[in-house]
Amino acid sequence: MRILRKTCLLGACALLAAGAGAAADKELPPKPSVADIVKASRAGDWRPLDPDNTLYMETAAGRVVIEMAPAFAPNHVRNIKALARAHYFDGLAILRVQDNFVVQWGDPNEDNDKARKVEGAHKTVKAEFTVPLKSAGPFTRLPDRDGYAPESGFANGFPAGRDPKTGEAWLAHCYGMVGVGRDTDADSGGGTALYAVIGPARHLDRNITVVGRVVAGMPQLAALPRGPAPMGFYDKPEMNVPVIAVKVAADVPPNERSRLEVMRTDGAAFQSVLDAQRDRGGPWTKVAMHHVDLCAVQVPVREQQP
Amino acid sequence: MRILRKTCLLGACALLAAGAGAAADKELPPKPSVADIVKASRAGDWRPLDPDNTLYMETAAGRVVIEMAPAFAPNHVRNIKALARAHYFDGLAILRVQDNFVVQWGDPNEDNDKARKVEGAHKTVKAEFTVPLKSAGPFTRLPDRDGYAPESGFANGFPAGRDPKTGEAWLAHCYGMVGVGRDTDADSGGGTALYAVIGPARHLDRNITVVGRVVAGMPQLAALPRGPAPMGFYDKPEMNVPVIAVKVAADVPPNERSRLEVMRTDGAAFQSVLDAQRDRGGPWTKVAMHHVDLCAVQVPVREQQP
Repeated sequence: MRILRKTCLLGACALLAAGAGAAADKELPPKPSVADIVKASRAGDWRPLDPDNTLYMETAAGRVVIEMAPAFAPNHVRNIKALARAHYFDGLAILRVQDNFVVQWGDPNEDNDKARKVEGAHKTVKAEFTVPLKSAGPFTRLPDRDGYAPESGFANGFPAGRDPKTGEAWLAHCYGMVGVGRDTDADSGGGTALYAVIGPARHLDRNITVVGRVVAGMPQLAALPRGPAPMGFYDKPEMNVPVIAVKVAADVPPNERSRLEVMRTDGAAFQSVLDAQRDRGGPWTKVAMHHVDLCAVQVPVREQQP
Repeated sequence: MRILRKTCLLGACALLAAGAGAAADKELPPKPSVADIVKASRAGDWRPLDPDNTLYMETAAGRVVIEMAPAFAPNHVRNIKALARAHYFDGLAILRVQDNFVVQWGDPNEDNDKARKVEGAHKTVKAEFTVPLKSAGPFTRLPDRDGYAPESGFANGFPAGRDPKTGEAWLAHCYGMVGVGRDTDADSGGGTALYAVIGPARHLDRNITVVGRVVAGMPQLAALPRGPAPMGFYDKPEMNVPVIAVKVAADVPPNERSRLEVMRTDGAAFQSVLDAQRDRGGPWTKVAMHHVDLCAVQVPVREQQP
């Protein structure tokens, strides 16, 4: 009882409990879970993070690792790296947590005369809301319905939409995706204010520049207190969560780097992961969905294997 | 600058900033936001919570208000009310927070000899994963695509799916929905272990009994620390978040009740809310989505107006 109750609740133990069901004839057949697929995967199913396109945001809540997507926002990624290397973010803060929407960080003083100066980088960069299809690189298309894009799938690990008619591709606002805050003008962002998605936000797709994805640290960001002011802003300076430093991983000594690898989204192992999330096996699951939403897909990330 | 940066970020200030844009010819026309629609709504667009089908869960993190859905799970709702009235939950705990999935509460000792006894209620209740279409009551169908259900929409404020072919309706696992933990056997739950959804979980639809929705208190639940054990369980008793008491609102003196009202989902105001979330107006928004996911729809809840 204990094992079932504590480890099988909500469908995560299909194989573990296989054979335990009394009504096996009514059950879905067992099938490998994502954990099983990860366990059976080979080295070639994974890729390391590129240190030159990875950020470490050291916060009072721990390290947040962001994989950047230069294929989708080359100029913003270049600018954010320049900001990081100029220590723009060091000493700033997480200043907004809007429940079921976004966590945002930047300069608490940006609108007053103590505003951090932007040096060695640009304050604004021309919008990169979409890119030409061929710039986005190889695309693993999902057969599943998507209401927000004519086609959706994964481009080098990032959830993305595409429109063959317009010839555009764009990153999708799924959980953990990182975007560039802006004002009303499309070209008014540059990376000095960034946010990570913690709820349904795909109405922002093609309306804002998305620069990457948090691959480690979301549990800490998502558990921060929600801000009491409108739109989830913290209303007292002491609520702000310090951002100690943001660094490009390549600038960090190798022994201080997070050694993570991400499952390749262009291979067979990922197809199995998609299938495992689209149609779960029994005996816990009684009805298979035959569907997985783009933003419900979890791309596996793990410590690099020795 | 401050107003735009602080109040308009991520598209929530369309009307406020109207006329401020330099490139008005390229902007989407402004249109009412959800806040505008709420402000312009009439008393008849709202309904109060029914005290007999509302639970107050008093926790160390504050009060959580749960509206129950007897149309979808009559026997579980009856049983959970009986459990609450027998003080079953008082002194138990929130014992699991799995990032981007669920927050769960129940008896930390359920698997040992200190387990809380179930008195005046049933330990298990036959599964209520779906109900006949006509039992679900009036349905406001969304025209938007849904990958998890042939038809989706709202039934008396609750997100729901339907299948005309099988004649079934069911509650959908959107943010804040409350479900009944169970073991492998479909009939093994009864309401002693409950969870609230904090991430993509629609693969649980029709696989578990859903009993209602948190209408106040999600920001506190969703900000609880994630559990370090597998599936997000807390691994030390001191991590558990005390559940002080769970009461049926009707049993609470009127002056201690939360006076909330929910926008009716069968009226014109809600259609405007849907439209405002499906196609946002300019000038912040540059591209309208022509779509809103079932679980991206926010049904307005507010303090009862005097």
